[in-house]
Amino acid sequence: MTATLSATLFQELENLVLIDPHSHINPLSAASKNLADLMGYHYYTELAHSAGLPKDQIEGPEITPKEKVGRLVEKLADLDNTIQVSWLLEMCREFFGFADDRITKDNWESLYDSAEQKMSQPDWEQQVLKHSKLEKVFLTNDFDDPLEGFDTGVYIPCLRTDDLVFHFLKKAVRDRLHKATGIEAIDAGTLRTAIGKLFQHFVAKGARACAISLPPTFSPVKVDPGAASTIIKHAVKGQRLTNSEQDMLSSFVFWTLTEYCAEFKLPFDLMIGVNRRVYEAGVYQGQDLYDTRVSLIQYKEVLNAFPQVTFPISVLTHMSNQELVSYSWIFPNIVANGHWWYSNTPTYIELDTRSRLEAVPRNKQIGYYSDMYKLEFALPKFRMYRRILARVLAEDFVQRRGWSEDQALALGKQVLRGNVETIFHI
Amino acid sequence: MTATLSATLFQELENLVLIDPHSHINPLSAASKNLADLMGYHYYTELAHSAGLPKDQIEGPEITPKEKVGRLVEKLADLDNTIQVSWLLEMCREFFGFADDRITKDNWESLYDSAEQKMSQPDWEQQVLKHSKLEKVFLTNDFDDPLEGFDTGVYIPCLRTDDLVFHFLKKAVRDRLHKATGIEAIDAGTLRTAIGKLFQHFVAKGARACAISLPPTFSPVKVDPGAASTIIKHAVKGQRLTNSEQDMLSSFVFWTLTEYCAEFKLPFDLMIGVNRRVYEAGVYQGQDLYDTRVSLIQYKEVLNAFPQVTFPISVLTHMSNQELVSYSWIFPNIVANGHWWYSNTPTYIELDTRSRLEAVPRNKQIGYYSDMYKLEFALPKFRMYRRILARVLAEDFVQRRGWSEDQALALGKQVLRGNVETIFHI
Amino acid sequence: MTATLSATLFQELENLVLIDPHSHINPLSAASKNLADLMGYHYYTELAHSAGLPKDQIEGPEITPKEKVGRLVEKLADLDNTIQVSWLLEMCREFFGFADDRITKDNWESLYDSAEQKMSQPDWEQQVLKHSKLEKVFLTNDFDDPLEGFDTGVYIPCLRTDDLVFHFLKKAVRDRLHKATGIEAIDAGTLRTAIGKLFQHFVAKGARACAISLPPTFSPVKVDPGAASTIIKHAVKGQRLTNSEQDMLSSFVFWTLTEYCAEFKLPFDLMIGVNRRVYEAGVYQGQDLYDTRVSLIQYKEVLNAFPQVTFPISVLTHMSNQELVSYSWIFPNIVANGHWWYSNTPTYIELDTRSRLEAVPRNKQIGYYSDMYKLEFALPKFRMYRRILARVLAEDFVQRRGWSEDQALALGKQVLRGNVETIFHI
Ligand SMILES: [Zn+2]
Ligand SMILES: [Zn+2]
Ligand SMILES: [Zn+2]
Repeated sequence: MTATLSATLFQELENLVLIDPHSHINPLSAASKNLADLMGYHYYTELAHSAGLPKDQIEGPEITPKEKVGRLVEKLADLDNTIQVSWLLEMCREFFGFADDRITKDNWESLYDSAEQKMSQPDWEQQVLKHSKLEKVFLTNDFDDPLEGFDTGVYIPCLRTDDLVFHFLKKAVRDRLHKATGIEAIDAGTLRTAIGKLFQHFVAKGARACAISLPPTFSPVKVDPGAASTIIKHAVKGQRLTNSEQDMLSSFVFWTLTEYCAEFKLPFDLMIGVNRRVYEAGVYQGQDLYDTRVSLIQYKEVLNAFPQVTFPISVLTHMSNQELVSYSWIFPNIVANGHWWYSNTPTYIELDTRSRLEAVPRNKQIGYYSDMYKLEFALPKFRMYRRILARVLAEDFVQRRGWSEDQALALGKQVLRGNVETIFHI
Repeated sequence: MTATLSATLFQELENLVLIDPHSHINPLSAASKNLADLMGYHYYTELAHSAGLPKDQIEGPEITPKEKVGRLVEKLADLDNTIQVSWLLEMCREFFGFADDRITKDNWESLYDSAEQKMSQPDWEQQVLKHSKLEKVFLTNDFDDPLEGFDTGVYIPCLRTDDLVFHFLKKAVRDRLHKATGIEAIDAGTLRTAIGKLFQHFVAKGARACAISLPPTFSPVKVDPGAASTIIKHAVKGQRLTNSEQDMLSSFVFWTLTEYCAEFKLPFDLMIGVNRRVYEAGVYQGQDLYDTRVSLIQYKEVLNAFPQVTFPISVLTHMSNQELVSYSWIFPNIVANGHWWYSNTPTYIELDTRSRLEAVPRNKQIGYYSDMYKLEFALPKFRMYRRILARVLAEDFVQRRGWSEDQALALGKQVLRGNVETIFHI
Repeated sequence: MTATLSATLFQELENLVLIDPHSHINPLSAASKNLADLMGYHYYTELAHSAGLPKDQIEGPEITPKEKVGRLVEKLADLDNTIQVSWLLEMCREFFGFADDRITKDNWESLYDSAEQKMSQPDWEQQVLKHSKLEKVFLTNDFDDPLEGFDTGVYIPCLRTDDLVFHFLKKAVRDRLHKATGIEAIDAGTLRTAIGKLFQHFVAKGARACAISLPPTFSPVKVDPGAASTIIKHAVKGQRLTNSEQDMLSSFVFWTLTEYCAEFKLPFDLMIGVNRRVYEAGVYQGQDLYDTRVSLIQYKEVLNAFPQVTFPISVLTHMSNQELVSYSWIFPNIVANGHWWYSNTPTYIELDTRSRLEAVPRNKQIGYYSDMYKLEFALPKFRMYRRILARVLAEDFVQRRGWSEDQALALGKQVLRGNVETIFHI
């Protein structure tokens, strides 16, 4: 009975047209051109590398897309248990009519060719958007992105700020900031003004969010502008900073960004918990991991200081999910946001979804975002989530709490789409 | 088949008359007088505030109970997914014959009035106790509570000690201790004697437990009385203490309490993990959160030093539950106690219940306590737990391990009631 | 439908002949001689002690095996809910034809006698191996074990190294090393040479792994041999080391062991997270617990430095499982290994199994090891795991992902056996 109900709810949720509130789509090349664009996604390269494929077999300028796919395919048999490979199969079935159980050395070439043919159709991008029921997609834009050449009504800009907060010490970053704003940031005041320019530019272009990913050690505090100026001056001169000075500088920039989020009424997406370059010999984008020893209490000061800023928070691990539930239930300015990266697998999504739906106000949770680099991934990823969401609604709400199917469906639609509209003012 | 069995076990567990081993009931006003007493529970005010209701709309001396309920009702639609609102509906159905799906602006006033009428019946408190199958209810008493004016056979005193351990520095606390005991605590010896007086008083009045909630940073150690005296003298003079001195003072008081628990054979309820006032602008009782980075190993010294004291331990988060399971399985003096606060939602209760029932001796676990402030809450809260317990017994014990229904039921009754009697000597 | 499928898969998995990749079997006395050998397993003594049985009732040279069993039986009623007692019942049913529901004071003596009779049969060990479908069993050998007197084709040596890494300061350990190798380890060079001798000996005797259990505080770094030599010289003179010197010494030995693992191509089993002697008055082997605050990031340096060494990693708690999943998915040299000790109960095994099967390459996970001290335990422990594995394969792979029964079964067999062969080169 529950299985039937769950299937019915899934079908209903499948009909919902979506706004994807976080992706890494390049709006100038949103859809894929060949299977290498799909299988080059770091999930496949890092899993294949982890399973034994040498990095130099798949990374290097001399490797053609088709060669790369061929080499990855040889490792797929070791990865076919992963949910990530199930996404790949689902895309191949939905978009390219692939009918086999597995992608193997015997069938991949014909798949490659038929996929390439399909993807070369001039309206491929539109086909994908339509077939995936995607209406709008949030981007992740470098702070110096001109935000030109695409329809910001479909591809919504989002100001990504990791470089400013954690890499201001790098001359290349400061040069980019100078170039983007015309302002040379040499102290707290000029840095503040330059950042303000970025916000003006992004908001003028229709940005709906500011975003950042944060290491587990970060704990922002308010920094006195005078102290910040001293450190910025050292940084600009190329002097080394102590750890404590680097932390203060990061805090100062983070705090300044939050002030502008308040001023420009932009939600500030915090993605908490990633350690960069833990596995230094890993493939591209396959080097980052984490330390579960992190707490949202590290954000106590900023959460209290900015009640007017909405913080959609993503946590990297299931171990942080209960904190996200509890902090969202107490702090009006926190929204529980999606299932990020290492927690974006069914076991963790299901538990995290259950715990959020039963304890966080329904208007304060965003069910899912794709985090995709290529447009085709929205379909299998959101579908995975819709299946789980349907199951949770069927079991926890209809079966156990006596809700009607319609009531359950309305809740599902709200977390999948409605809240994206209200929270990001779309 | 499992669903049927689970329903059968639930019905059987529903028949069990309970002793609630932890609540915040005021025995002089145990039951509610109107819907505002129910909806003023911090779960509703904090969730409504989190969902967007300004604090000043629901807190303030000029707001009548009916106004307060009306304002909270306007936010209920954003909270109806939460398990806490399901408790509210269940109370309204069971106690006031409420028949609608939701409490809305259209139906709340008649509900308010019919509830008020029902609650004004002179035997309302008795009706609630009887209908909820509650035989006895543990209280949470301030250390200077006279414990008079109520039947301590029904409302069992419990000595709550947070103020003594963490707020001795406050003159008001010291004055209350002085007044309650006739002793001025000016050094280790007089403080010890004063605390002894409290134990005598509480035990004479039928107290069955000492209790405390503890921040995640606390790690009690044995403190030399001479060193404690020095610090107490500073405290009494109103001097500021260093963090380390404050920790030593807290440790000394905690250790002294534990010594008296040994002497008076009182279990010492430890509720581990809460950070107070994290969200400072929160509603009343809606400001506390936590840091998951806490371990029971912080209690290693005291657990080893007091084998004769039973410590019923509650942990604030699901993340601490496995430690509670493992420590209860090893230490004879630890009892796994209930599902506290932020972990008192079905997803976490179910996992925590499963893991305890399969690895902790059955005589060392207390299934549930209500933690309620008003008597009406025992019914929906214990019912939520009984449903989950019935499901776990059906699946894990009858279906998977081949137990008979009777054997499973006996286990359920033991963790729901039997162990409360043996552990607290009732 | 799922239940039927799960039962079918379980039956298929039950037919699989196993290699147990980690145990504490004494190959000179692998099987039990009486029920005391089974019930003397620390799980029963520690649970009985935790439930109230005084330690001196079950530990002491004057207690006969039969007396010990009689006393433990009196406490079994308090433990019958635990999965560990279900193992005991399953052994008694499978091996001794026990037909009752529970072991009680009325039936234990006849069970004891019939078990003893069965176990005294000269081919008992062979019977157990055959009935349990065990082909080979990994041992845990002290570094100075002569590895003689048994068939290393069945009982595979494994070099256990805790003593070397954490107890080199003890003269007894240094004496054992001297005796085993003929080398007096008085500085970095001689210690290195001595350890090399151990590897030569173990590998010559067919060892297939090196292993160690590690406290949650340990974080190995590369130590300069000169600095190590200075510390070793102090240690050899019996001087006390500072904590930092002890850490450096442990790091040096750990690093040296890892170098030899590279040289001799031995996987290095890391069992991460145990604190020894937390409950000092506990029974034999029932004193250890843990602190969940531990991260695999502590092993970042060694994991990066030794890409050629395979590290099958076990974590002590479910709270560390997601890190194990993520680190195995990124690092080619990590294998997710079994369900250790406090996580070896069905609730945690199920969640950990689900999360690994959906995100870690299938060739990089070892489903289970027994960790047993006596041969009879392989049957109930592996059976517990096979039941859970069958359920996960049925639900997650066949039902939800549309795999065929054969495909699911192949995955089950690979994690249960196939990977043990490939990872340990058997
Ligand atoms: Zn992203
Ligand atoms: Zn309480
Ligand atoms: Zn072991």
